[in-house]
Amino acid sequence: MEDDAEQPNGVTVHAGATLGVSYDTDSEAPTVGEGSVIRSGTILYNDVTIGKRLQTGHHALIREQTVIGDDSLVGTQTVIDGETDVGDSVSMQTGVYIPRNTTIGDRVFLGPKATLLNDMFPVRSDYELTGPTLRDDVSVGANATILPDVTIGENAFIAAGAVVTEDVPPRTLAAGVPATHQTLPEELTGGNDL
Amino acid sequence: MEDDAEQPNGVTVHAGATLGVSYDTDSEAPTVGEGSVIRSGTILYNDVTIGKRLQTGHHALIREQTVIGDDSLVGTQTVIDGETDVGDSVSMQTGVYIPRNTTIGDRVFLGPKATLLNDMFPVRSDYELTGPTLRDDVSVGANATILPDVTIGENAFIAAGAVVTEDVPPRTLAAGVPATHQTLPEELTGGNDL
Amino acid sequence: MEDDAEQPNGVTVHAGATLGVSYDTDSEAPTVGEGSVIRSGTILYNDVTIGKRLQTGHHALIREQTVIGDDSLVGTQTVIDGETDVGDSVSMQTGVYIPRNTTIGDRVFLGPKATLLNDMFPVRSDYELTGPTLRDDVSVGANATILPDVTIGENAFIAAGAVVTEDVPPRTLAAGVPATHQTLPEELTGGNDL
Repeated sequence: MEDDAEQPNGVTVHAGATLGVSYDTDSEAPTVGEGSVIRSGTILYNDVTIGKRLQTGHHALIREQTVIGDDSLVGTQTVIDGETDVGDSVSMQTGVYIPRNTTIGDRVFLGPKATLLNDMFPVRSDYELTGPTLRDDVSVGANATILPDVTIGENAFIAAGAVVTEDVPPRTLAAGVPATHQTLPEELTGGNDL
Repeated sequence: MEDDAEQPNGVTVHAGATLGVSYDTDSEAPTVGEGSVIRSGTILYNDVTIGKRLQTGHHALIREQTVIGDDSLVGTQTVIDGETDVGDSVSMQTGVYIPRNTTIGDRVFLGPKATLLNDMFPVRSDYELTGPTLRDDVSVGANATILPDVTIGENAFIAAGAVVTEDVPPRTLAAGVPATHQTLPEELTGGNDL
Repeated sequence: MEDDAEQPNGVTVHAGATLGVSYDTDSEAPTVGEGSVIRSGTILYNDVTIGKRLQTGHHALIREQTVIGDDSLVGTQTVIDGETDVGDSVSMQTGVYIPRNTTIGDRVFLGPKATLLNDMFPVRSDYELTGPTLRDDVSVGANATILPDVTIGENAFIAAGAVVTEDVPPRTLAAGVPATHQTLPEELTGGNDL
Protein backbone atom coordinates (compact mmCIF):
# COMPACT_ATOMS: atom_id res chain seq x y z
CA MET A 1 0.00 0.00 0.00
CA GLU A 2 1.26 3.45 -0.91
CA ASP A 3 2.22 6.04 1.62
CA ASP A 4 0.52 9.31 0.88
CA ALA A 5 1.78 12.72 1.84
CA GLU A 6 -0.96 15.29 2.31
CA GLN A 7 0.61 18.69 1.77
CA PRO A 8 -0.43 21.88 3.61
CA ASN A 9 -2.36 23.30 0.65
CA GLY A 10 -4.58 20.26 0.40
CA VAL A 11 -2.71 18.51 -2.41
CA THR A 12 -2.16 14.76 -2.07
CA VAL A 13 1.17 13.67 -3.50
CA HIS A 14 1.61 9.90 -3.44
CA ALA A 15 4.97 8.35 -2.66
CA GLY A 16 6.93 7.98 -5.87
CA ALA A 17 5.48 11.10 -7.50
CA THR A 18 7.80 14.02 -8.31
CA LEU A 19 6.49 17.54 -7.83
CA GLY A 20 8.99 19.89 -9.42
CA VAL A 21 11.82 19.08 -11.83
CA SER A 22 14.22 21.94 -12.45
CA TYR A 23 14.98 22.44 -16.14
CA ASP A 24 16.56 25.87 -15.78
CA THR A 25 18.24 27.66 -12.91
CA ASP A 26 15.53 30.34 -12.89
CA SER A 27 12.64 27.91 -12.92
CA GLU A 28 10.18 27.80 -10.03
CA ALA A 29 8.29 25.02 -8.30
CA PRO A 30 4.97 24.04 -9.90
CA THR A 31 1.69 25.40 -8.52
CA VAL A 32 -1.07 22.83 -7.98
CA GLY A 33 -4.55 23.77 -6.72
CA GLU A 34 -6.25 22.37 -3.64
CA GLY A 35 -7.91 19.02 -3.78
CA SER A 36 -5.51 17.69 -6.39
CA VAL A 37 -4.14 14.12 -6.32
CA ILE A 38 -0.80 13.29 -7.95
CA ARG A 39 -0.30 9.52 -8.19
CA SER A 40 2.91 7.52 -8.03
CA GLY A 41 5.34 7.67 -10.92
CA THR A 42 3.95 10.98 -12.16
CA ILE A 43 6.42 13.84 -12.75
CA LEU A 44 5.64 17.58 -12.86
CA TYR A 45 8.31 19.99 -14.05
CA ASN A 46 8.85 23.44 -12.65
CA ASP A 47 6.83 26.35 -14.05
CA VAL A 48 3.66 24.26 -14.33
CA THR A 49 0.42 25.90 -13.14
CA ILE A 50 -2.57 23.71 -12.38
CA GLY A 51 -6.02 24.58 -10.98
CA LYS A 52 -8.09 22.81 -8.36
CA ARG A 53 -8.89 19.13 -8.15
CA LEU A 54 -6.47 17.81 -10.78
CA GLN A 55 -6.35 14.03 -10.80
CA THR A 56 -3.41 12.20 -12.34
CA GLY A 57 -2.85 8.55 -13.07
CA HIS A 58 0.56 6.87 -12.74
CA HIS A 59 3.72 7.61 -14.75
CA ALA A 60 2.27 10.75 -16.34
CA LEU A 61 4.59 13.62 -17.29
CA ILE A 62 3.72 17.33 -17.37
CA ARG A 63 6.56 19.52 -18.59
CA GLU A 64 7.35 23.18 -18.08
CA GLN A 65 5.12 26.12 -18.91
CA THR A 66 1.97 24.05 -19.06
CA VAL A 67 -1.21 25.63 -17.66
CA ILE A 68 -4.20 23.43 -16.78
CA GLY A 69 -7.56 24.64 -15.42
CA ASP A 70 -9.77 23.12 -12.72
CA ASP A 71 -11.22 19.61 -12.48
CA SER A 72 -9.06 18.04 -15.15
CA LEU A 73 -7.68 14.50 -15.42
CA VAL A 74 -4.24 13.58 -16.76
CA GLY A 75 -4.31 9.81 -17.20
CA THR A 76 -1.67 7.15 -16.64
CA GLN A 77 1.35 7.56 -18.98
CA THR A 78 -0.09 10.71 -20.54
CA VAL A 79 2.66 13.13 -21.61
CA ILE A 80 2.15 16.89 -21.94
CA ASP A 81 5.41 18.07 -23.45
CA GLY A 82 5.27 21.68 -22.22
CA GLU A 83 4.21 25.21 -23.29
CA THR A 84 0.58 24.11 -23.58
CA ASP A 85 -2.73 25.53 -22.34
CA VAL A 86 -5.46 23.15 -21.18
CA GLY A 87 -8.91 24.31 -20.00
CA ASP A 88 -11.28 23.12 -17.25
CA SER A 89 -12.85 19.68 -16.95
CA VAL A 90 -10.59 18.15 -19.58
CA SER A 91 -10.22 14.37 -19.48
CA MET A 92 -7.08 12.81 -20.91
CA GLN A 93 -7.27 9.02 -20.70
CA THR A 94 -4.29 6.62 -20.60
CA GLY A 95 -1.28 7.26 -22.84
CA VAL A 96 -2.31 10.52 -24.50
CA TYR A 97 0.47 12.58 -26.10
CA ILE A 98 0.27 16.39 -26.24
CA PRO A 99 3.18 18.23 -27.93
CA ARG A 100 4.44 21.73 -27.23
CA ASN A 101 2.40 24.71 -28.35
CA THR A 102 -0.99 23.00 -28.14
CA THR A 103 -4.24 24.70 -27.07
CA ILE A 104 -7.07 22.67 -25.53
CA GLY A 105 -10.42 24.21 -24.48
CA ASP A 106 -12.88 23.22 -21.77
CA ARG A 107 -14.63 19.86 -21.43
CA VAL A 108 -12.40 18.23 -24.04
CA PHE A 109 -12.14 14.43 -23.94
CA LEU A 110 -9.07 12.58 -25.28
CA GLY A 111 -9.37 8.79 -25.48
CA PRO A 112 -6.54 6.33 -24.76
CA LYS A 113 -3.37 6.84 -26.85
CA ALA A 114 -4.73 9.86 -28.74
CA THR A 115 -1.65 11.53 -30.25
CA LEU A 116 -1.33 15.18 -31.21
CA LEU A 117 1.59 16.52 -33.29
CA ASN A 118 3.41 19.79 -33.75
CA ASP A 119 6.02 19.09 -36.44
CA MET A 120 4.83 18.74 -40.03
CA PHE A 121 8.15 17.98 -41.70
CA PRO A 122 10.33 16.56 -38.93
CA VAL A 123 13.96 17.49 -39.53
CA ARG A 124 13.26 18.09 -43.23
CA SER A 125 12.29 21.77 -43.33
CA ASP A 126 12.50 24.58 -40.83
CA TYR A 127 9.02 24.74 -39.40
CA GLU A 128 7.64 26.66 -36.45
CA LEU A 129 6.38 23.96 -34.10
CA THR A 130 2.63 24.46 -33.76
CA GLY A 131 0.36 21.91 -32.11
CA PRO A 132 -3.36 21.55 -32.83
CA THR A 133 -6.12 23.69 -31.31
CA LEU A 134 -9.02 21.75 -29.80
CA ARG A 135 -12.03 24.00 -29.10
CA ASP A 136 -14.47 23.45 -26.24
CA ASP A 137 -16.34 20.15 -26.01
CA VAL A 138 -14.24 18.29 -28.56
CA SER A 139 -13.95 14.49 -28.22
CA VAL A 140 -10.99 12.60 -29.65
CA GLY A 141 -11.26 8.82 -29.97
CA ALA A 142 -8.62 6.32 -28.95
CA ASN A 143 -5.47 6.00 -31.03
CA ALA A 144 -6.45 8.96 -33.20
CA THR A 145 -3.62 11.08 -34.63
CA ILE A 146 -4.06 14.84 -35.13
CA LEU A 147 -1.55 16.66 -37.31
CA PRO A 148 0.14 19.96 -36.51
CA ASP A 149 -1.65 23.29 -36.69
CA VAL A 150 -5.07 21.67 -37.23
CA THR A 151 -8.09 23.30 -35.54
CA ILE A 152 -10.89 21.04 -34.31
CA GLY A 153 -14.14 23.02 -33.98
CA GLU A 154 -16.47 23.05 -30.98
CA ASN A 155 -18.22 19.81 -30.18
CA ALA A 156 -16.56 17.95 -33.06
CA PHE A 157 -15.94 14.22 -32.62
CA ILE A 158 -12.85 12.44 -33.92
CA ALA A 159 -13.36 8.69 -34.37
CA ALA A 160 -11.02 6.08 -32.91
CA GLY A 161 -8.01 5.49 -35.16
CA ALA A 162 -8.63 8.53 -37.37
CA VAL A 163 -5.70 10.48 -38.84
CA VAL A 164 -6.81 14.12 -38.98
CA THR A 165 -4.87 16.11 -41.57
CA GLU A 166 -7.04 19.26 -41.94
CA ASP A 167 -9.35 21.47 -39.90
CA VAL A 168 -12.57 19.89 -38.67
CA PRO A 169 -15.64 22.18 -38.55
CA PRO A 170 -17.71 22.41 -35.35
CA ARG A 171 -20.25 19.65 -34.68
CA THR A 172 -18.69 17.34 -37.25
CA LEU A 173 -17.60 13.70 -37.13
CA ALA A 174 -14.15 12.99 -38.60
CA ALA A 175 -13.22 9.34 -39.28
CA GLY A 176 -10.76 7.30 -41.35
CA VAL A 177 -7.21 7.58 -42.69
CA PRO A 178 -6.98 10.35 -43.75
CA ALA A 179 -10.13 11.49 -41.96
CA THR A 180 -13.22 12.50 -43.93
CA HIS A 181 -16.06 14.54 -42.46
CA GLN A 182 -19.69 13.68 -41.80
CA THR A 183 -22.64 15.18 -39.94
CA LEU A 184 -22.67 14.08 -36.31
CA PRO A 185 -24.95 11.09 -35.83
CA GLU A 186 -27.79 11.60 -33.33
CA GLU A 187 -26.08 9.71 -30.48
CA LEU A 188 -23.06 12.04 -30.64
CA THR A 189 -24.92 15.34 -30.54
CA GLY A 190 -24.95 15.60 -26.73
CA GLY A 191 -22.56 17.94 -24.96
CA ASN A 192 -19.45 16.87 -23.07
CA ASP A 193 -20.88 17.41 -19.62
CA LEU A 194 -22.34 14.10 -18.54
CA MET B 1 21.83 -3.98 -10.88
CA GLU B 2 18.44 -4.33 -9.26
CA ASP B 3 17.92 -5.68 -5.79
CA ASP B 4 15.33 -8.39 -5.83
CA ALA B 5 13.18 -9.39 -2.92
CA GLU B 6 12.11 -13.03 -2.99
CA GLN B 7 8.90 -13.26 -1.00
CA PRO B 8 7.91 -16.28 1.12
CA ASN B 9 5.34 -17.55 -1.42
CA GLY B 10 7.89 -17.70 -4.20
CA VAL B 11 7.03 -14.39 -5.86
CA THR B 12 9.94 -12.21 -6.97
CA VAL B 13 9.18 -8.51 -6.56
CA HIS B 14 11.95 -6.32 -7.93
CA ALA B 15 12.95 -3.12 -6.18
CA GLY B 16 10.78 -0.28 -7.44
CA ALA B 17 7.71 -2.45 -8.02
CA THR B 18 4.56 -1.77 -5.95
CA LEU B 19 2.51 -4.73 -4.80
CA GLY B 20 -0.76 -3.36 -3.44
CA VAL B 21 -2.22 0.11 -3.88
CA SER B 22 -5.21 0.81 -1.66
CA TYR B 23 -8.08 2.42 -3.58
CA ASP B 24 -10.73 1.86 -0.91
CA THR B 25 -10.56 1.36 2.84
CA ASP B 26 -12.02 -2.15 2.51
CA SER B 27 -9.66 -3.25 -0.23
CA GLU B 28 -7.27 -6.14 0.33
CA ALA B 29 -3.72 -6.85 -0.79
CA PRO B 30 -3.36 -8.48 -4.21
CA THR B 31 -2.86 -12.23 -4.53
CA VAL B 32 -0.06 -13.36 -6.85
CA GLY B 33 0.71 -17.03 -7.55
CA GLU B 34 4.05 -18.72 -7.00
CA GLY B 35 6.80 -18.34 -9.54
CA SER B 36 5.64 -14.86 -10.56
CA VAL B 37 8.10 -12.05 -11.32
CA ILE B 38 7.02 -8.40 -10.93
CA ARG B 39 9.58 -6.05 -12.48
CA SER B 40 10.55 -2.53 -11.42
CA GLY B 41 8.12 0.31 -11.99
CA THR B 42 5.12 -2.04 -12.17
CA ILE B 43 2.13 -1.30 -9.91
CA LEU B 44 -0.57 -3.74 -8.77
CA TYR B 45 -3.64 -2.39 -7.00
CA ASN B 46 -5.41 -4.16 -4.19
CA ASP B 47 -8.09 -6.74 -5.02
CA VAL B 48 -6.10 -8.14 -7.94
CA THR B 49 -5.94 -11.94 -8.21
CA ILE B 50 -3.23 -13.52 -10.36
CA GLY B 51 -2.32 -17.16 -10.98
CA LYS B 52 1.07 -18.82 -11.11
CA ARG B 53 4.12 -17.72 -13.07
CA LEU B 54 2.94 -14.23 -14.09
CA GLN B 55 5.72 -12.25 -15.72
CA THR B 56 5.52 -8.48 -15.93
CA GLY B 57 7.68 -5.96 -17.73
CA HIS B 58 8.47 -2.53 -16.33
CA HIS B 59 6.03 0.32 -15.59
CA ALA B 60 2.96 -1.86 -16.12
CA LEU B 61 -0.24 -1.11 -14.18
CA ILE B 62 -2.88 -3.62 -13.09
CA ARG B 63 -5.85 -2.03 -11.36
CA GLU B 64 -8.40 -3.38 -8.91
CA GLN B 65 -10.69 -6.36 -9.45
CA THR B 66 -8.63 -7.80 -12.25
CA VAL B 67 -8.31 -11.60 -12.39
CA ILE B 68 -5.52 -13.18 -14.46
CA GLY B 69 -4.89 -16.94 -14.90
CA ASP B 70 -1.61 -18.86 -14.94
CA ASP B 71 1.45 -18.35 -17.17
CA SER B 72 0.49 -14.94 -18.48
CA LEU B 73 2.69 -12.00 -19.47
CA VAL B 74 1.85 -8.34 -18.84
CA GLY B 75 4.39 -6.35 -20.86
CA THR B 76 6.21 -3.12 -20.16
CA GLN B 77 3.84 -0.12 -19.90
CA THR B 78 0.76 -2.31 -20.38
CA VAL B 79 -2.26 -0.96 -18.48
CA ILE B 80 -5.17 -3.13 -17.33
CA ASP B 81 -7.65 -0.59 -16.01
CA GLY B 82 -9.53 -2.90 -13.63
CA GLU B 83 -12.63 -5.15 -13.41
CA THR B 84 -11.29 -7.40 -16.15
CA ASP B 85 -10.91 -11.17 -16.55
CA VAL B 86 -7.88 -12.58 -18.34
CA GLY B 87 -7.31 -16.30 -18.99
CA ASP B 88 -4.22 -18.54 -18.94
CA SER B 89 -1.15 -18.19 -21.16
CA VAL B 90 -2.13 -14.73 -22.37
CA SER B 91 0.68 -12.58 -23.78
CA MET B 92 0.33 -8.81 -23.68
CA GLN B 93 3.32 -7.16 -25.31
CA THR B 94 4.58 -3.61 -24.62
CA GLY B 95 2.11 -0.78 -24.18
CA VAL B 96 -1.19 -2.67 -24.48
CA TYR B 97 -4.29 -0.91 -23.08
CA ILE B 98 -7.17 -2.93 -21.60
CA PRO B 99 -10.18 -0.94 -20.31
CA ARG B 100 -12.59 -1.92 -17.55
CA ASN B 101 -15.12 -4.66 -18.15
CA THR B 102 -13.08 -6.58 -20.69
CA THR B 103 -13.02 -10.37 -21.04
CA ILE B 104 -9.98 -12.16 -22.49
CA GLY B 105 -9.82 -15.95 -22.98
CA ASP B 106 -6.87 -18.35 -22.93
CA ARG B 107 -3.79 -18.18 -25.19
CA VAL B 108 -4.67 -14.70 -26.46
CA PHE B 109 -1.82 -12.65 -27.93
CA LEU B 110 -1.90 -8.83 -27.92
CA GLY B 111 0.85 -7.10 -29.91
CA PRO B 112 2.59 -3.87 -28.92
CA LYS B 113 0.27 -0.89 -28.34
CA ALA B 114 -2.93 -2.83 -29.06
CA THR B 115 -5.74 -0.68 -27.62
CA LEU B 116 -9.14 -1.93 -26.48
CA LEU B 117 -12.03 0.45 -25.67
CA ASN B 118 -15.12 0.44 -23.49
CA ASP B 119 -16.82 3.76 -24.19
CA MET B 120 -18.63 4.18 -27.50
CA PHE B 121 -19.76 7.78 -27.12
CA PRO B 122 -17.36 9.30 -24.60
CA VAL B 123 -19.16 11.94 -22.53
CA ARG B 124 -21.80 12.33 -25.25
CA SER B 125 -24.42 9.75 -24.22
CA ASP B 126 -24.97 7.68 -21.12
CA TYR B 127 -23.50 4.34 -22.02
CA GLU B 128 -22.78 1.31 -19.91
CA LEU B 129 -19.02 0.85 -20.21
CA THR B 130 -18.44 -2.52 -21.87
CA GLY B 131 -15.05 -3.62 -23.15
CA PRO B 132 -14.52 -6.17 -25.91
CA THR B 133 -14.61 -9.94 -25.48
CA LEU B 134 -11.63 -11.82 -26.95
CA ARG B 135 -12.28 -15.57 -27.17
CA ASP B 136 -9.57 -18.22 -26.82
CA ASP B 137 -6.58 -18.16 -29.20
CA VAL B 138 -7.25 -14.68 -30.60
CA SER B 139 -4.25 -12.70 -31.90
CA VAL B 140 -4.34 -8.90 -32.04
CA GLY B 141 -1.68 -7.11 -34.10
CA ALA B 142 0.33 -4.10 -33.00
CA ASN B 143 -1.37 -0.72 -32.80
CA ALA B 144 -4.78 -2.26 -33.53
CA THR B 145 -7.82 -0.57 -31.97
CA ILE B 146 -10.85 -2.62 -30.90
CA LEU B 147 -14.08 -0.77 -30.18
CA PRO B 148 -16.37 -1.35 -27.20
CA ASP B 149 -18.61 -4.38 -26.86
CA VAL B 150 -17.09 -6.11 -29.89
CA THR B 151 -16.64 -9.91 -29.71
CA ILE B 152 -13.61 -11.44 -31.45
CA GLY B 153 -14.26 -15.13 -32.19
CA GLU B 154 -11.91 -18.02 -31.41
CA ASN B 155 -8.64 -18.08 -33.31
CA ALA B 156 -9.42 -14.86 -35.19
CA PHE B 157 -6.49 -12.66 -36.20
CA ILE B 158 -6.59 -8.86 -36.13
CA ALA B 159 -3.97 -7.26 -38.40
CA ALA B 160 -1.56 -4.57 -37.22
CA GLY B 161 -3.13 -1.12 -37.33
CA ALA B 162 -6.69 -2.38 -37.86
CA VAL B 163 -9.65 -0.51 -36.33
CA VAL B 164 -12.24 -3.17 -35.45
CA THR B 165 -15.77 -1.74 -35.25
CA GLU B 166 -17.90 -4.88 -35.34
CA ASP B 167 -17.81 -8.53 -34.25
CA VAL B 168 -15.21 -10.74 -35.93
CA PRO B 169 -16.24 -14.38 -36.58
CA PRO B 170 -13.99 -17.22 -35.43
CA ARG B 171 -11.00 -18.11 -37.62
CA THR B 172 -11.22 -14.84 -39.56
CA LEU B 173 -8.66 -12.19 -40.48
CA ALA B 174 -9.74 -8.60 -39.86
CA ALA B 175 -7.63 -5.81 -41.42
CA GLY B 176 -7.92 -2.14 -42.37
CA VAL B 177 -9.67 1.02 -41.14
CA PRO B 178 -12.45 0.18 -40.52
CA ALA B 179 -11.55 -3.51 -40.56
CA THR B 180 -12.97 -5.80 -43.21
CA HIS B 181 -12.99 -9.60 -42.92
CA GLN B 182 -11.23 -12.30 -44.91
CA THR B 183 -10.58 -16.01 -44.61
CA LEU B 184 -7.44 -16.73 -42.62
CA PRO B 185 -4.46 -17.25 -44.92
CA GLU B 186 -2.68 -20.60 -44.56
CA GLU B 187 0.20 -19.23 -42.47
CA LEU B 188 -2.22 -17.94 -39.84
CA THR B 189 -4.26 -21.09 -39.34
CA GLY B 190 -2.01 -22.50 -36.62
CA GLY B 191 -3.08 -22.36 -33.01
CA ASN B 192 -1.68 -20.01 -30.40
CA ASP B 193 0.39 -22.58 -28.58
CA LEU B 194 3.84 -22.44 -30.08
CA MET C 1 13.52 19.18 -7.69
CA GLU C 2 15.52 16.15 -8.68
CA ASP C 3 18.85 15.23 -7.21
CA ASP C 4 21.37 14.54 -9.92
CA ALA C 5 24.39 12.33 -9.57
CA GLU C 6 27.27 13.29 -11.85
CA GLN C 7 29.33 10.18 -12.38
CA PRO C 8 33.12 10.15 -12.82
CA ASN C 9 32.96 9.61 -16.59
CA GLY C 10 30.81 12.66 -17.14
CA VAL C 11 27.43 10.90 -17.32
CA THR C 12 24.54 12.52 -15.47
CA VAL C 13 22.19 9.94 -13.98
CA HIS C 14 19.13 11.52 -12.39
CA ALA C 15 17.68 10.13 -9.19
CA GLY C 16 15.18 7.43 -10.02
CA ALA C 17 17.03 6.23 -13.13
CA THR C 18 18.45 2.69 -13.19
CA LEU C 19 21.78 2.13 -14.88
CA GLY C 20 22.27 -1.63 -15.18
CA VAL C 21 19.70 -4.37 -14.76
CA SER C 22 21.17 -7.86 -14.64
CA TYR C 23 19.31 -10.31 -16.88
CA ASP C 24 21.95 -13.05 -16.77
CA THR C 25 24.68 -13.91 -14.30
CA ASP C 26 27.37 -13.23 -16.92
CA SER C 27 25.99 -9.87 -17.96
CA GLU C 28 28.02 -6.71 -17.49
CA ALA C 29 27.15 -3.14 -16.57
CA PRO C 30 26.11 -0.88 -19.47
CA THR C 31 28.61 1.49 -21.05
CA VAL C 32 27.43 5.06 -21.57
CA GLY C 33 29.57 7.74 -23.24
CA GLU C 34 30.52 11.08 -21.72
CA GLY C 35 28.09 13.94 -21.77
CA SER C 36 25.06 11.62 -21.58
CA VAL C 37 21.99 12.43 -19.47
CA ILE C 38 19.75 9.62 -18.18
CA ARG C 39 16.50 11.04 -16.77
CA SER C 40 14.37 9.70 -13.93
CA GLY C 41 12.37 6.55 -14.42
CA THR C 42 14.57 5.36 -17.28
CA ILE C 43 16.06 1.85 -17.09
CA LEU C 44 19.13 0.52 -18.92
CA TYR C 45 19.86 -3.20 -18.85
CA ASN C 46 23.30 -4.70 -18.70
CA ASP C 47 25.23 -5.26 -21.94
CA VAL C 48 24.02 -1.99 -23.44
CA THR C 49 26.65 0.13 -25.24
CA ILE C 50 25.92 3.79 -25.88
CA GLY C 51 28.07 6.55 -27.40
CA LYS C 52 28.54 10.11 -26.31
CA ARG C 53 25.89 12.65 -25.44
CA LEU C 54 22.85 10.34 -25.28
CA GLN C 55 19.80 12.12 -23.95
CA THR C 56 16.90 10.16 -22.53
CA GLY C 57 13.46 11.25 -21.44
CA HIS C 58 11.64 9.69 -18.48
CA HIS C 59 10.46 6.07 -18.10
CA ALA C 60 12.34 4.88 -21.18
CA LEU C 61 13.65 1.29 -21.32
CA ILE C 62 16.74 0.06 -23.18
CA ARG C 63 17.24 -3.69 -22.95
CA GLU C 64 20.30 -5.88 -23.30
CA GLN C 65 22.62 -6.04 -26.31
CA THR C 66 21.49 -2.73 -27.72
CA VAL C 67 24.17 -0.55 -29.32
CA ILE C 68 23.50 3.17 -29.86
CA GLY C 69 25.90 5.69 -31.48
CA ASP C 70 26.65 9.29 -30.50
CA ASP C 71 24.27 12.23 -30.09
CA SER C 72 21.05 10.20 -30.04
CA LEU C 73 17.81 10.84 -28.14
CA VAL C 74 15.65 8.13 -26.57
CA GLY C 75 12.38 9.86 -25.65
CA THR C 76 10.07 9.47 -22.69
CA GLN C 77 8.48 6.00 -22.52
CA THR C 78 10.39 4.78 -25.57
CA VAL C 79 11.18 1.06 -25.38
CA ILE C 80 14.11 -0.59 -27.20
CA ASP C 81 13.55 -4.27 -26.56
CA GLY C 82 17.14 -5.42 -27.00
CA GLU C 83 19.56 -6.86 -29.61
CA THR C 84 19.24 -3.74 -31.75
CA ASP C 85 21.72 -1.43 -33.49
CA VAL C 86 21.03 2.30 -33.62
CA GLY C 87 23.29 4.84 -35.39
CA ASP C 88 24.37 8.39 -34.62
CA SER C 89 22.10 11.42 -34.26
CA VAL C 90 18.94 9.32 -34.11
CA SER C 91 15.90 10.97 -32.54
CA MET C 92 13.21 8.77 -30.99
CA GLN C 93 10.36 10.90 -29.68
CA THR C 94 7.91 9.92 -26.93
CA GLY C 95 6.56 6.38 -26.77
CA VAL C 96 8.42 4.78 -29.67
CA TYR C 97 8.61 0.96 -29.70
CA ILE C 98 11.62 -0.84 -31.21
CA PRO C 99 11.55 -4.68 -31.13
CA ARG C 100 14.51 -7.03 -31.02
CA ASN C 101 16.66 -7.50 -34.09
CA THR C 102 16.06 -4.05 -35.54
CA THR C 103 18.66 -1.99 -37.44
CA ILE C 104 18.48 1.81 -37.50
CA GLY C 105 20.95 4.00 -39.44
CA ASP C 106 22.20 7.52 -38.79
CA ARG C 107 20.03 10.65 -38.54
CA VAL C 108 16.80 8.65 -38.37
CA PHE C 109 13.78 10.41 -36.87
CA LEU C 110 10.96 8.44 -35.21
CA GLY C 111 7.86 10.45 -34.25
CA PRO C 112 5.75 9.90 -31.14
CA LYS C 113 4.35 6.37 -30.73
CA ALA C 114 5.95 5.01 -33.92
CA THR C 115 5.83 1.23 -33.57
CA LEU C 116 8.14 -1.27 -35.25
CA LEU C 117 7.45 -5.03 -35.27
CA ASN C 118 9.45 -8.23 -35.52
CA ASP C 119 6.88 -11.01 -35.48
CA MET C 120 4.79 -11.55 -38.61
CA PHE C 121 2.61 -14.37 -37.39
CA PRO C 122 2.59 -14.06 -33.62
CA VAL C 123 2.27 -17.49 -32.04
CA ARG C 124 0.80 -18.89 -35.28
CA SER C 125 3.87 -20.05 -37.17
CA ASP C 126 7.50 -20.51 -36.25
CA TYR C 127 9.12 -17.36 -37.53
CA GLU C 128 12.58 -15.99 -36.99
CA LEU C 129 12.03 -12.67 -35.27
CA THR C 130 13.34 -9.95 -37.59
CA GLY C 131 12.67 -6.27 -37.05
CA PRO C 132 12.70 -3.64 -39.80
CA THR C 133 15.81 -1.99 -41.23
CA LEU C 134 15.70 1.81 -41.38
CA ARG C 135 18.46 3.25 -43.57
CA ASP C 136 20.15 6.61 -42.98
CA ASP C 137 18.00 9.77 -42.91
CA VAL C 138 14.65 7.98 -42.70
CA SER C 139 11.75 9.81 -41.01
CA VAL C 140 8.84 7.90 -39.48
CA GLY C 141 5.68 9.84 -38.60
CA ALA C 142 3.76 9.58 -35.36
CA ASN C 143 1.71 6.48 -34.68
CA ALA C 144 3.02 4.76 -37.81
CA THR C 145 3.37 0.97 -37.72
CA ILE C 146 6.17 -0.81 -39.59
CA LEU C 147 5.89 -4.54 -40.11
CA PRO C 148 8.67 -7.09 -39.59
CA ASP C 149 11.56 -7.49 -41.98
CA VAL C 150 10.63 -4.39 -43.98
CA THR C 151 13.47 -2.20 -45.28
CA ILE C 152 12.92 1.55 -45.46
CA GLY C 153 15.33 3.13 -47.97
CA GLU C 154 17.52 6.18 -47.40
CA ASN C 155 15.73 9.46 -46.89
CA ALA C 156 12.27 7.86 -47.19
CA PHE C 157 9.43 9.46 -45.25
CA ILE C 158 6.65 7.47 -43.55
CA ALA C 159 3.51 9.53 -42.94
CA ALA C 160 1.78 9.72 -39.56
CA GLY C 161 -0.56 6.79 -38.99
CA ALA C 162 0.74 4.74 -41.94
CA VAL C 163 0.90 0.93 -41.74
CA VAL C 164 3.94 -0.12 -43.77
CA THR C 165 3.69 -3.71 -44.99
CA GLU C 166 6.40 -3.83 -47.68
CA ASP C 167 9.80 -2.30 -48.49
CA VAL C 168 9.85 1.44 -49.17
CA PRO C 169 12.35 2.64 -51.81
CA PRO C 170 14.77 5.48 -51.01
CA ARG C 171 13.43 9.04 -51.23
CA THR C 172 9.81 7.89 -51.24
CA LEU C 173 6.75 8.95 -49.24
CA ALA C 174 4.68 6.06 -47.81
CA ALA C 175 1.20 6.89 -46.47
CA GLY C 176 -2.10 5.16 -45.65
CA VAL C 177 -3.32 1.78 -44.40
CA PRO C 178 -1.76 -0.23 -45.91
CA ALA C 179 0.80 2.32 -47.06
CA THR C 180 1.09 3.24 -50.75
CA HIS C 181 4.11 5.00 -52.22
CA GLN C 182 4.51 8.43 -53.81
CA THR C 183 7.33 10.69 -54.90
CA LEU C 184 8.52 12.90 -52.04
CA PRO C 185 6.85 16.30 -52.18
CA GLU C 186 9.22 19.27 -52.42
CA GLU C 187 8.99 20.20 -48.72
CA LEU C 188 10.18 16.72 -47.69
CA THR C 189 13.23 16.50 -49.90
CA GLY C 190 15.59 18.09 -47.37
CA GLY C 191 18.02 15.97 -45.40
CA ASN C 192 17.65 15.01 -41.76
CA ASP C 193 20.31 17.34 -40.44
CA LEU C 194 18.58 20.55 -39.47
